Amino acid sequence: MSLSEFDVIKKYFCRDVSTEDSTVVLGIGDDCAILDVPEGHQLLISTDTLVAGIHFFEDVDAYRLGYKALAVNLSDLSAMGAEPKWISLAITLPNVDADWLARFSNGFFDLAAKHNVTLIGGDTTKGPLSITVSVQGIVPKNTALLRSQAKVGDIICVSGSLGDGALGLAYQLSNKSLKLANAQAFVDKLELTDPRVKLGLLLRGMAHSCIDISDGLTQDLTHILNASHCCAQIDVETLPLSEALQQELDLGNIKGEQALHYALTGGDDYELLFTLPEEMFGSLQQSIPELRLTAVGKVIAPQASKIQLTKHKKAFSLTLSGWDHFKKDGE
Amino acid sequence: MSLSEFDVIKKYFCRDVSTEDSTVVLGIGDDCAILDVPEGHQLLISTDTLVAGIHFFEDVDAYRLGYKALAVNLSDLSAMGAEPKWISLAITLPNVDADWLARFSNGFFDLAAKHNVTLIGGDTTKGPLSITVSVQGIVPKNTALLRSQAKVGDIICVSGSLGDGALGLAYQLSNKSLKLANAQAFVDKLELTDPRVKLGLLLRGMAHSCIDISDGLTQDLTHILNASHCCAQIDVETLPLSEALQQELDLGNIKGEQALHYALTGGDDYELLFTLPEEMFGSLQQSIPELRLTAVGKVIAPQASKIQLTKHKKAFSLTLSGWDHFKKDGE
Repeated sequence: MSLSEFDVIKKYFCRDVSTEDSTVVLGIGDDCAILDVPEGHQLLISTDTLVAGIHFFEDVDAYRLGYKALAVNLSDLSAMGAEPKWISLAITLPNVDADWLARFSNGFFDLAAKHNVTLIGGDTTKGPLSITVSVQGIVPKNTALLRSQAKVGDIICVSGSLGDGALGLAYQLSNKSLKLANAQAFVDKLELTDPRVKLGLLLRGMAHSCIDISDGLTQDLTHILNASHCCAQIDVETLPLSEALQQELDLGNIKGEQALHYALTGGDDYELLFTLPEEMFGSLQQSIPELRLTAVGKVIAPQASKIQLTKHKKAFSLTLSGWDHFKKDGE
Repeated sequence: MSLSEFDVIKKYFCRDVSTEDSTVVLGIGDDCAILDVPEGHQLLISTDTLVAGIHFFEDVDAYRLGYKALAVNLSDLSAMGAEPKWISLAITLPNVDADWLARFSNGFFDLAAKHNVTLIGGDTTKGPLSITVSVQGIVPKNTALLRSQAKVGDIICVSGSLGDGALGLAYQLSNKSLKLANAQAFVDKLELTDPRVKLGLLLRGMAHSCIDISDGLTQDLTHILNASHCCAQIDVETLPLSEALQQELDLGNIKGEQALHYALTGGDDYELLFTLPEEMFGSLQQSIPELRLTAVGKVIAPQASKIQLTKHKKAFSLTLSGWDHFKKDGE
């Protein structure tokens, strides 16, 4: 490295701490950061690693990489209803590329500023490109949203639309060969998704359970169902698709069954999936009118299969062959 | 990977949380961990990354790697007088090797158990071997030991002995060709050093400033001096050498000047370096009789050079040629 570790930290990562954040007693510059957790609150911590070639393309735009490294962690805090406060960033770089670092840090700090979070420490090392972000947030005591408290009778809801992130990834994996009218919209959802921080805060005291959709609706819902010892019925007709995905359907670029697979099993949407009593849904929607919220099913008593799909109130099964075929096309 | 991420976490990293630790409200298994910071305390956070081929040899024993990944972070907490509480572990593995994971997690958890810290989360990913540990500790409000509060007139002290870790590294880098009677002792200091947690706790309310020696006495002392706007005088005659290093000197395997260089500039000792009023030194020594503590100099008013070396009360200068020559031998 032409710049030392200290130089890199100072030049790209020591940005002014918001003077309004009195919880940061000491930021970057000593052996540890010192933080004040407000009285009556609990601390929440989540950590995610993004490895080049595994979680992102080596040539991804550095601004988007910096943004996403933080976004996926803020999404975890949102899934528990936490207010994001502080971030540690451990970044391993093969070399010091000033332009890359400037873009990466801009993406990272733009999202940090939007959600009032402060970078309080980390580590800069040399090696294969990899980024580990650890975020810390707070909730008033005993108000965190858990996976384990879903109740039979709850409705199951999701924010935003489903499947776009996975379609963006399929487009990238196909080396942009997929015929899509809205390719950039899907790639933007994959790389620049906005974590649902405000929704997470609203869900405290309202939702019984919550998780973020990083691995696809069915896989993430299964985590809730296993932790809560119950099952779910999902009405595939209600799954919210974006205008962009609907347009691809209308144009015949995507088949209906493929769209369903994206919505049910696609990862990288970073929407929230939550359960709550049906009577609360209306007031929740009114609290956050700018965000599309959709009821997609309900929590039911334990059954033989964890998730039952329905369509027009009838049992519905989806063959996986179409999906596998499409996946091969996309790889 | 033959085992999934969830399998690896469950099999190797979900060990019983100490039932005595009521601060862990929720550990591994949801989007975030939930933690209670005791009232009247502040939270301290530090993060370190170890990259294969950069911070450790690719073939290092996995037990020692797991141990050291945690040790270097606990050392940062100790340098600020914090009581270690919780750990997040982000580990990137090229493949799932059951034996390697068992040894790694044993080393990690053995040290964690010794210091009563709980693994509360993290991430397991595929890619080039790399380990990022983030530790969280607590101190009663406003008692953390800072780098910035050294006072003119303070004596400068170190724990343990200096230079052994660096000599262990030189031995490894030389492919074990260095002629040393105590090679294993130096390698053990490099790989299995015990972080000075108890000393850090004792230094609260006593030391004015503190840092851990990870990059060598002179470099780490300079961080204190810069942050505290003062200078230092170090008496090279007082630098504490281990019995093993003293024996190498007696045997003629190491020259006196080389030993001095190791003690002054060698990293990887993870001893504490601190400043305090001279009259407190006696009672501090009595509080922790099992640990060698040595006064090696004093804090002085700003001068032209940050660190002045003395020997028998006379100015002393050390030529760097011997060191460079030796470094070449060792590489």
